[in-house]
Amino acid sequence: MLSEMTESELHELHAGAETRYSAHVAAGLNLDLTRGKPATDQLDLANALDGLLQGDFRAEDGTDVRNYGGLMGLTELRRLGAAMLDTDPELTLAGGNSSLTLMFQFAEAAALFGLDGPGSAWRETLREVPDGGPRRLRFLCPVPGYDRHFTICERLAIEMIPVPLGATGPDPAELREFVRNDPNIRGIWCVPKYSNPTGIVYDDATVDAIAALPNDAGPGFRVFWDNAYAMHDFGAPLPLAPIAAAAEQHGTLEHIVQFASTSKITFAGGGVAFMSTGPATMAAFREHLAAMMIGPDKVNQLRHARLLPDLDSLRELMRRHADLIRPKFEVTLAALERLRPLGIATWSEPRGGYFISLDVQPGLASVIVDMAARAGVRLTPAGATWPLGREPMDRNLRLAPSYPTLGEVRQAMDVLVDTIILATTRQHFGLLAS
Amino acid sequence: MLSEMTESELHELHAGAETRYSAHVAAGLNLDLTRGKPATDQLDLANALDGLLQGDFRAEDGTDVRNYGGLMGLTELRRLGAAMLDTDPELTLAGGNSSLTLMFQFAEAAALFGLDGPGSAWRETLREVPDGGPRRLRFLCPVPGYDRHFTICERLAIEMIPVPLGATGPDPAELREFVRNDPNIRGIWCVPKYSNPTGIVYDDATVDAIAALPNDAGPGFRVFWDNAYAMHDFGAPLPLAPIAAAAEQHGTLEHIVQFASTSKITFAGGGVAFMSTGPATMAAFREHLAAMMIGPDKVNQLRHARLLPDLDSLRELMRRHADLIRPKFEVTLAALERLRPLGIATWSEPRGGYFISLDVQPGLASVIVDMAARAGVRLTPAGATWPLGREPMDRNLRLAPSYPTLGEVRQAMDVLVDTIILATTRQHFGLLAS
Repeated sequence: MLSEMTESELHELHAGAETRYSAHVAAGLNLDLTRGKPATDQLDLANALDGLLQGDFRAEDGTDVRNYGGLMGLTELRRLGAAMLDTDPELTLAGGNSSLTLMFQFAEAAALFGLDGPGSAWRETLREVPDGGPRRLRFLCPVPGYDRHFTICERLAIEMIPVPLGATGPDPAELREFVRNDPNIRGIWCVPKYSNPTGIVYDDATVDAIAALPNDAGPGFRVFWDNAYAMHDFGAPLPLAPIAAAAEQHGTLEHIVQFASTSKITFAGGGVAFMSTGPATMAAFREHLAAMMIGPDKVNQLRHARLLPDLDSLRELMRRHADLIRPKFEVTLAALERLRPLGIATWSEPRGGYFISLDVQPGLASVIVDMAARAGVRLTPAGATWPLGREPMDRNLRLAPSYPTLGEVRQAMDVLVDTIILATTRQHFGLLAS
Repeated sequence: MLSEMTESELHELHAGAETRYSAHVAAGLNLDLTRGKPATDQLDLANALDGLLQGDFRAEDGTDVRNYGGLMGLTELRRLGAAMLDTDPELTLAGGNSSLTLMFQFAEAAALFGLDGPGSAWRETLREVPDGGPRRLRFLCPVPGYDRHFTICERLAIEMIPVPLGATGPDPAELREFVRNDPNIRGIWCVPKYSNPTGIVYDDATVDAIAALPNDAGPGFRVFWDNAYAMHDFGAPLPLAPIAAAAEQHGTLEHIVQFASTSKITFAGGGVAFMSTGPATMAAFREHLAAMMIGPDKVNQLRHARLLPDLDSLRELMRRHADLIRPKFEVTLAALERLRPLGIATWSEPRGGYFISLDVQPGLASVIVDMAARAGVRLTPAGATWPLGREPMDRNLRLAPSYPTLGEVRQAMDVLVDTIILATTRQHFGLLAS
């Protein structure tokens, strides 16, 4: 443990780290661990999408997918999305290439237009807060979390309340306490399986408690259930309790909105996004969508339906993804093991998803991002996993090892581990610029 | 002329129309002239899109189009869109499958978020109106016009002011008068070429005057220039004065926003949409987009770039469209000629686009839509070409002959013309239910 080292041992560690870091800087690398992008060989797995239709543009119900129409998407794709989300195809929409867009559109519809009848827009239903605090729209944001969720709140002027994300999800009792005390909390962001970035999976009790949460919350409260990694297991599929079923029992189905996509299944930029919620909420959201579009790209949807006719074919494709991505996580975790005897960092060891969350010593995350960049390794900006990009402790880093090659991941992690050691010893010796 | 007929001639006309109409009702037809959808043989012209990439997913700058990123779209597609809109590729965005979505997102960004810096949202900059009228966001809406434009205003609580659309566009003097008198008029909808539904083309003076209009208007005023039919000539391409060039001269480029798409060029539901405006406005809009998406479907964009590498290939494709769609317009117009000697209707004779605008006797449009439906011919609802679906005179009908086969168009028009004659004679004899 670094904390138990003698000064001379520390000097030795520091000097070695300086030497190795200088060598990395001199090597002029250009490596990128910033975003959860599929690698080229993963994208190749879906190349058959282009040309798959072979001139047959008819969906199973006879729809000519080339023409206008069909706001809810193709029946066969809605079925696939519903299977991914463990819910009802009738309550599932198949959209364009981005679930993030559906999330924004849903949040915007709820905040600015209203999804529960006239006058139900969040901005029109702000209530007095018991403790006399400011009347502001608020969201609960388990942290660390996904920066693009936070950006949606920021754009819609929704204040974000960070709540800690534990090993089985956020603490249900804490969530209940929050929503009971503030009727202006109108939503929560959840990535329930292989959470971005910690990779944890919500346990059954947490899923059930979150399904019940709307019963304690203010008007129009919605659970944003972004199941982006529903199918993204490295090994045997790990089950997640179906929130739609729990919501049925608690009478809250209208308040749960689920999202998923094939972005990390087929083509990251050319997949199909899904959304599912209760029937009344879906009808209201559909009305919002109808003001801005005639229908999604059904040609691309049909390609997806032909490539992935059922959940089995989807699972088979995901096994091939796992074979490509798992080794990169193994290399990343193996590199981090060099830090374990020093006790200067902790990290998640996910069984799926796209990220590893790494906690370094307080105050060092932004230093390490800058130092790694100078040594040719780009990381997600420090703080990105917190609302407004501001993490009070400045200790969390998000690692995304999927996009580089295995060799590049190994190189990048070698640089990063040396950088972490150096930043920590520099901190110890008071050598960091303030 | 019906107005010069004797009573016995009128009775004869009426009896004949009743007989023919009854026969149509008995025939149980099922024909549809409602929407401007391309026909199946038109969609076939772009079937090569699927499979065109042949495993080569690299854009001209080396981008792997399958992965995330590229909010502005592919360079080669932006170039194509800019050529269609007679503007600068650097100022042109290539998006998803719907220009309507871009229009909504742009209008929403301007109205609710602001495109001209902090506090510039239309809803935050409402001004007192000189005559003391209500302080409401307003748009000028040349009529008859496109129903989906009006729906966007409705969704954003923008009041619509109908202004007559003449043979060369709306009257510039009238537009100037409106915007000078009411600073809360923040936009105008224009379909400058083969206007939906009258098929007129704005003349050079009108284009120039509209480019200058923002200089007389309230804060944040935008011209929504929906050039949906830029390439959709039946014969020799008809030039439209480039509004971007005129706007440069008047210093109003930031206030002009142009839209186009390949929806009626390749696949109606699976095309690529374009938008172009000034640099500052584009930067602000891009920021809005960045909150809701990572990028458009670049795979589909690359397909389009390969199918349509330049404006010449696009024009060649449009000539093939024209060969398929022109005969349907000829049949429609030939059928309407039966009405000319009676003097009971007037109609547009467009040289491109997707629609014919038909004016019947006041008070008869909704009657005719209902009667035609009973005889198996569906028409766009009466009033659809006016804001909120309410046309004061109830006389305008929009005909969309593109989707049915030539034989079906002939049949449908036979029914429609008989229906118009019958509705008119019924009106004359006081036989219409009130």
